[in-house]
Amino acid sequence: MDFAEICEEKFDINRYLGLLCHPGCGGTSVFMGTSRCTSKISDKTVKALDYTAYVPMAVKKLKDVCVNARRTCAVGNIVVAHRVGYVPVGEPGLFVGVSAPHRQAAIQCMDLTITAIKAGVPVWKEEVYEDDTRAWTTNAECFWLPKPPTHSTDLPQK
Amino acid sequence: MDFAEICEEKFDINRYLGLLCHPGCGGTSVFMGTSRCTSKISDKTVKALDYTAYVPMAVKKLKDVCVNARRTCAVGNIVVAHRVGYVPVGEPGLFVGVSAPHRQAAIQCMDLTITAIKAGVPVWKEEVYEDDTRAWTTNAECFWLPKPPTHSTDLPQK
Repeated sequence: MDFAEICEEKFDINRYLGLLCHPGCGGTSVFMGTSRCTSKISDKTVKALDYTAYVPMAVKKLKDVCVNARRTCAVGNIVVAHRVGYVPVGEPGLFVGVSAPHRQAAIQCMDLTITAIKAGVPVWKEEVYEDDTRAWTTNAECFWLPKPPTHSTDLPQK
Repeated sequence: MDFAEICEEKFDINRYLGLLCHPGCGGTSVFMGTSRCTSKISDKTVKALDYTAYVPMAVKKLKDVCVNARRTCAVGNIVVAHRVGYVPVGEPGLFVGVSAPHRQAAIQCMDLTITAIKAGVPVWKEEVYEDDTRAWTTNAECFWLPKPPTHSTDLPQK
Protein backbone atom coordinates (compact mmCIF):
# COMPACT_ATOMS: atom_id res chain seq x y z
CA MET A 1 0.00 0.00 0.00
CA ASP A 2 1.27 3.47 -0.89
CA PHE A 3 0.07 6.54 1.01
CA ALA A 4 1.13 10.07 0.06
CA GLU A 5 -0.11 13.43 1.28
CA ILE A 6 0.71 17.10 1.51
CA CYS A 7 -0.23 18.24 4.98
CA GLU A 8 -1.04 21.69 6.35
CA GLU A 9 -1.08 20.59 9.99
CA LYS A 10 1.40 18.77 12.23
CA PHE A 11 2.01 15.20 11.11
CA ASP A 12 -0.12 12.53 12.80
CA ILE A 13 2.82 10.18 13.34
CA ASN A 14 0.76 7.49 15.07
CA ARG A 15 -1.57 7.35 12.07
CA TYR A 16 1.41 6.98 9.70
CA LEU A 17 2.91 4.19 11.83
CA GLY A 18 -0.47 2.45 11.78
CA LEU A 19 -0.57 2.66 7.98
CA LEU A 20 2.95 1.21 7.77
CA CYS A 21 2.08 -1.81 9.91
CA HIS A 22 2.07 -5.05 7.88
CA PRO A 23 1.98 -8.56 9.41
CA GLY A 24 4.53 -9.88 6.88
CA CYS A 25 7.05 -7.13 7.58
CA GLY A 26 9.84 -7.50 10.15
CA GLY A 27 11.22 -3.99 9.81
CA THR A 28 9.92 -0.46 9.56
CA SER A 29 12.27 2.36 8.66
CA VAL A 30 11.28 6.00 9.10
CA PHE A 31 13.04 9.23 8.27
CA MET A 32 11.81 12.66 9.30
CA GLY A 33 13.35 15.83 7.94
CA THR A 34 13.06 18.41 10.72
CA SER A 35 13.47 22.18 10.84
CA ARG A 36 16.77 23.00 12.53
CA CYS A 37 18.14 26.16 14.09
CA THR A 38 21.30 26.41 11.97
CA SER A 39 21.37 27.56 8.35
CA LYS A 40 23.65 26.64 5.45
CA ILE A 41 23.18 30.06 3.88
CA SER A 42 23.16 32.47 6.82
CA ASP A 43 24.76 33.04 10.20
CA LYS A 44 21.36 33.93 11.63
CA THR A 45 19.43 31.58 13.89
CA VAL A 46 16.55 29.85 12.10
CA LYS A 47 13.25 29.70 13.96
CA ALA A 48 11.16 27.96 11.29
CA LEU A 49 10.98 26.75 7.70
CA ASP A 50 8.08 27.95 5.56
CA TYR A 51 7.21 25.49 2.78
CA THR A 52 5.31 26.31 -0.40
CA ALA A 53 4.00 23.79 -2.92
CA TYR A 54 1.60 23.48 -5.82
CA VAL A 55 -0.31 20.82 -3.92
CA PRO A 56 -1.95 18.73 -6.72
CA MET A 57 1.39 18.43 -8.54
CA ALA A 58 3.32 17.69 -5.33
CA VAL A 59 0.89 14.91 -4.34
CA LYS A 60 1.12 13.36 -7.81
CA LYS A 61 4.94 13.45 -7.67
CA LEU A 62 4.96 11.93 -4.16
CA LYS A 63 2.78 9.07 -5.44
CA ASP A 64 5.08 8.59 -8.46
CA VAL A 65 8.05 8.34 -6.08
CA CYS A 66 6.31 5.52 -4.18
CA VAL A 67 5.52 3.60 -7.38
CA ASN A 68 9.12 3.87 -8.57
CA ALA A 69 10.59 2.91 -5.19
CA ARG A 70 8.42 -0.20 -5.08
CA ARG A 71 9.85 -1.32 -8.44
CA THR A 72 13.34 -1.72 -7.00
CA CYS A 73 12.72 -2.85 -3.41
CA ALA A 74 10.70 -5.71 -1.89
CA VAL A 75 8.62 -3.69 0.54
CA GLY A 76 5.26 -3.80 2.28
CA ASN A 77 3.81 -0.32 2.81
CA ILE A 78 5.19 3.11 1.95
CA VAL A 79 4.03 6.33 3.62
CA VAL A 80 5.32 9.72 2.45
CA ALA A 81 4.14 13.12 3.62
CA HIS A 82 5.35 16.69 3.22
CA ARG A 83 4.14 19.68 5.16
CA VAL A 84 3.38 23.06 3.66
CA GLY A 85 3.33 26.29 5.59
CA TYR A 86 5.17 27.29 8.76
CA VAL A 87 7.17 24.50 10.46
CA PRO A 88 8.94 25.64 13.69
CA VAL A 89 12.40 24.33 14.61
CA GLY A 90 12.20 20.81 16.00
CA GLU A 91 9.08 19.81 14.05
CA PRO A 92 9.22 17.45 11.06
CA GLY A 93 8.39 18.77 7.58
CA LEU A 94 9.07 15.52 5.71
CA PHE A 95 8.01 12.00 6.72
CA VAL A 96 9.13 8.92 4.81
CA GLY A 97 8.27 5.46 6.17
CA VAL A 98 8.74 2.02 4.65
CA SER A 99 7.87 -1.41 6.06
CA ALA A 100 9.50 -4.49 4.55
CA PRO A 101 10.03 -8.16 5.37
CA HIS A 102 13.73 -7.46 5.96
CA ARG A 103 15.66 -4.58 7.47
CA GLN A 104 17.98 -3.77 4.56
CA ALA A 105 15.10 -3.45 2.08
CA ALA A 106 13.26 -1.08 4.43
CA ILE A 107 16.31 1.14 4.94
CA GLN A 108 17.37 1.10 1.29
CA CYS A 109 13.88 1.97 0.07
CA MET A 110 13.55 4.73 2.66
CA ASP A 111 16.86 6.28 1.56
CA LEU A 112 16.01 6.04 -2.17
CA THR A 113 12.61 7.57 -1.53
CA ILE A 114 14.02 10.60 0.31
CA THR A 115 16.51 11.22 -2.50
CA ALA A 116 13.74 10.98 -5.10
CA ILE A 117 11.51 13.39 -3.14
CA LYS A 118 14.27 15.95 -2.72
CA ALA A 119 15.19 15.68 -6.40
CA GLY A 120 11.77 15.68 -7.96
CA VAL A 121 8.89 16.89 -5.78
CA PRO A 122 8.12 20.61 -6.25
CA VAL A 123 8.22 21.95 -2.70
CA TRP A 124 10.09 25.19 -1.99
CA LYS A 125 11.26 26.39 1.38
CA GLU A 126 12.13 29.66 3.04
CA GLU A 127 14.18 29.92 6.19
CA VAL A 128 12.58 32.23 8.75
CA TYR A 129 15.09 33.79 11.14
CA GLU A 130 14.70 34.98 14.70
CA ASP A 131 14.70 38.61 13.50
CA ASP A 132 11.73 37.73 11.21
CA THR A 133 13.73 38.15 8.00
CA ARG A 134 13.52 35.31 5.48
CA ALA A 135 15.59 33.66 2.73
CA TRP A 136 14.69 31.08 0.09
CA THR A 137 16.94 28.05 0.21
CA THR A 138 18.19 25.92 -2.64
CA ASN A 139 18.21 22.15 -2.56
CA ALA A 140 21.56 20.77 -3.70
CA GLU A 141 19.93 17.44 -4.58
CA CYS A 142 17.43 18.98 -6.99
CA PHE A 143 18.50 19.16 -10.63
CA TRP A 144 15.44 20.57 -12.37
CA LEU A 145 13.90 23.24 -10.17
CA PRO A 146 14.38 26.83 -11.31
CA LYS A 147 16.41 29.07 -9.08
CA PRO A 148 14.29 30.13 -6.12
CA PRO A 149 12.64 33.56 -6.11
CA THR A 150 15.03 36.36 -5.25
CA HIS A 151 12.73 38.65 -3.30
CA SER A 152 14.19 37.50 0.00
CA THR A 153 14.01 40.02 2.80
CA ASP A 154 17.33 38.57 3.92
CA LEU A 155 19.16 40.33 1.06
CA PRO A 156 20.98 43.58 1.92
CA GLN A 157 18.81 46.63 1.28
CA LYS A 158 20.37 49.04 -1.19
CA MET B 1 21.91 12.50 24.78
CA ASP B 2 21.74 8.73 24.89
CA PHE B 3 18.63 6.93 26.14
CA ALA B 4 18.45 3.14 26.45
CA GLU B 5 15.85 0.93 28.05
CA ILE B 6 14.49 -2.58 28.23
CA CYS B 7 10.73 -2.33 28.19
CA GLU B 8 8.02 -4.74 29.40
CA GLU B 9 5.15 -2.77 27.88
CA LYS B 10 4.36 -1.46 24.41
CA PHE B 11 6.82 1.21 23.29
CA ASP B 12 5.76 4.80 23.93
CA ILE B 13 6.82 5.97 20.46
CA ASN B 14 5.76 9.58 21.02
CA ARG B 15 7.98 9.74 24.10
CA TYR B 16 10.94 8.37 22.12
CA LEU B 17 10.37 10.89 19.30
CA GLY B 18 10.27 13.66 21.90
CA LEU B 19 13.60 12.48 23.34
CA LEU B 20 15.13 12.44 19.84
CA CYS B 21 14.09 16.03 19.10
CA HIS B 22 17.11 18.38 18.92
CA PRO B 23 17.00 21.96 17.57
CA GLY B 24 20.34 21.54 15.76
CA CYS B 25 19.28 18.34 13.98
CA GLY B 26 17.72 18.36 10.50
CA GLY B 27 17.09 14.63 10.31
CA THR B 28 15.72 11.88 12.50
CA SER B 29 16.05 8.27 11.44
CA VAL B 30 14.10 5.50 13.14
CA PHE B 31 14.07 1.74 12.70
CA MET B 32 11.62 -0.59 14.38
CA GLY B 33 12.05 -4.34 14.31
CA THR B 34 8.54 -5.79 14.31
CA SER B 35 7.15 -9.28 14.92
CA ARG B 36 6.11 -10.76 11.57
CA CYS B 37 3.87 -13.66 10.66
CA THR B 38 6.43 -15.59 8.60
CA SER B 39 9.30 -17.61 10.05
CA LYS B 40 12.79 -18.37 8.75
CA ILE B 41 12.85 -21.68 10.61
CA SER B 42 9.31 -23.04 10.27
CA ASP B 43 6.42 -23.23 7.82
CA LYS B 44 4.02 -22.42 10.65
CA THR B 45 2.39 -19.01 11.00
CA VAL B 46 3.95 -16.90 13.74
CA LYS B 47 1.57 -15.07 16.06
CA ALA B 48 4.13 -13.47 18.38
CA LEU B 49 7.76 -13.26 19.44
CA ASP B 50 8.59 -13.85 23.09
CA TYR B 51 11.79 -12.08 24.17
CA THR B 52 13.92 -13.00 27.17
CA ALA B 53 16.82 -10.94 28.54
CA TYR B 54 18.99 -10.55 31.60
CA VAL B 55 17.81 -6.97 31.96
CA PRO B 56 20.71 -5.25 33.82
CA MET B 57 23.24 -6.69 31.37
CA ALA B 58 21.06 -5.88 28.34
CA VAL B 59 20.60 -2.25 29.44
CA LYS B 60 24.35 -1.89 30.00
CA LYS B 61 25.07 -3.31 26.54
CA LEU B 62 22.47 -1.03 24.91
CA LYS B 63 24.15 1.97 26.55
CA ASP B 64 27.58 0.76 25.36
CA VAL B 65 26.23 0.53 21.81
CA CYS B 66 25.12 4.18 21.98
CA VAL B 67 28.53 5.33 23.27
CA ASN B 68 30.34 3.46 20.49
CA ALA B 69 27.96 4.69 17.76
CA ARG B 70 28.50 8.29 18.86
CA ARG B 71 32.26 7.88 18.41
CA THR B 72 31.93 7.33 14.66
CA CYS B 73 28.95 9.53 13.71
CA ALA B 74 28.15 13.21 14.25
CA VAL B 75 24.74 12.83 15.85
CA GLY B 76 22.45 14.62 18.28
CA ASN B 77 20.37 12.18 20.33
CA ILE B 78 20.20 8.38 20.29
CA VAL B 79 17.25 6.37 21.65
CA VAL B 80 17.39 2.57 21.77
CA ALA B 81 14.82 0.29 23.35
CA HIS B 82 14.16 -3.46 23.35
CA ARG B 83 11.04 -5.16 24.58
CA VAL B 84 10.99 -8.28 26.68
CA GLY B 85 8.06 -10.64 26.92
CA TYR B 86 5.27 -11.36 24.46
CA VAL B 87 5.20 -9.15 21.33
CA PRO B 88 2.30 -9.95 18.95
CA VAL B 89 2.73 -9.80 15.17
CA GLY B 90 2.70 -6.20 13.94
CA GLU B 91 4.10 -4.71 17.15
CA PRO B 92 7.70 -3.45 17.41
CA GLY B 93 10.17 -5.25 19.68
CA LEU B 94 13.19 -3.10 18.83
CA PHE B 95 13.33 0.69 18.51
CA VAL B 96 16.43 2.53 17.32
CA GLY B 97 16.25 6.28 16.72
CA VAL B 98 18.98 8.78 15.89
CA SER B 99 18.76 12.53 15.28
CA ALA B 100 21.62 14.29 13.50
CA PRO B 101 22.35 17.59 11.76
CA HIS B 102 22.41 15.77 8.41
CA ARG B 103 20.43 12.89 6.92
CA GLN B 104 23.30 10.56 6.03
CA ALA B 105 24.76 10.66 9.55
CA ALA B 106 21.35 9.85 11.04
CA ILE B 107 20.77 6.88 8.72
CA GLN B 108 24.33 5.56 8.99
CA CYS B 109 24.32 5.73 12.79
CA MET B 110 20.90 4.07 12.94
CA ASP B 111 22.11 1.20 10.74
CA LEU B 112 25.36 0.73 12.70
CA THR B 113 23.43 0.77 15.96
CA ILE B 114 21.01 -1.95 14.88
CA THR B 115 23.88 -4.17 13.74
CA ALA B 116 25.67 -3.65 17.06
CA ILE B 117 22.52 -4.45 19.06
CA LYS B 118 21.86 -7.63 17.11
CA ALA B 119 25.49 -8.69 17.44
CA GLY B 120 26.10 -7.89 21.07
CA VAL B 121 23.04 -7.33 23.25
CA PRO B 122 21.93 -10.48 25.08
CA VAL B 123 18.26 -10.77 24.16
CA TRP B 124 16.87 -14.16 23.10
CA LYS B 125 13.68 -14.75 21.22
CA GLU B 126 11.18 -17.52 20.75
CA GLU B 127 8.72 -17.66 17.90
CA VAL B 128 5.19 -18.46 19.10
CA TYR B 129 3.06 -20.14 16.43
CA GLU B 130 -0.69 -20.10 15.89
CA ASP B 131 -0.92 -23.65 17.27
CA ASP B 132 0.79 -22.40 20.49
CA THR B 133 4.00 -24.33 19.88
CA ARG B 134 7.25 -22.40 20.18
CA ALA B 135 10.81 -22.43 18.80
CA TRP B 136 13.91 -20.50 19.82
CA THR B 137 15.43 -18.58 16.93
CA THR B 138 19.07 -17.91 16.22
CA ASN B 139 20.39 -14.53 15.16
CA ALA B 140 22.69 -14.81 12.16
CA GLU B 141 24.33 -11.49 13.03
CA CYS B 142 25.35 -12.60 16.52
CA PHE B 143 28.80 -14.13 16.84
CA TRP B 144 29.16 -14.73 20.57
CA LEU B 145 25.83 -15.95 21.96
CA PRO B 146 25.69 -19.59 22.94
CA LYS B 147 23.36 -21.78 20.97
CA PRO B 148 19.81 -21.11 22.16
CA PRO B 149 18.14 -23.51 24.58
CA THR B 150 16.89 -26.67 22.92
CA HIS B 151 13.77 -27.33 24.97
CA SER B 152 11.53 -26.01 22.22
CA THR B 153 8.06 -27.49 22.12
CA ASP B 154 8.33 -27.13 18.36
CA LEU B 155 10.73 -30.09 18.17
CA PRO B 156 9.20 -33.41 17.08
CA GLN B 157 8.03 -35.48 20.06
CA LYS B 158 9.73 -38.87 20.17
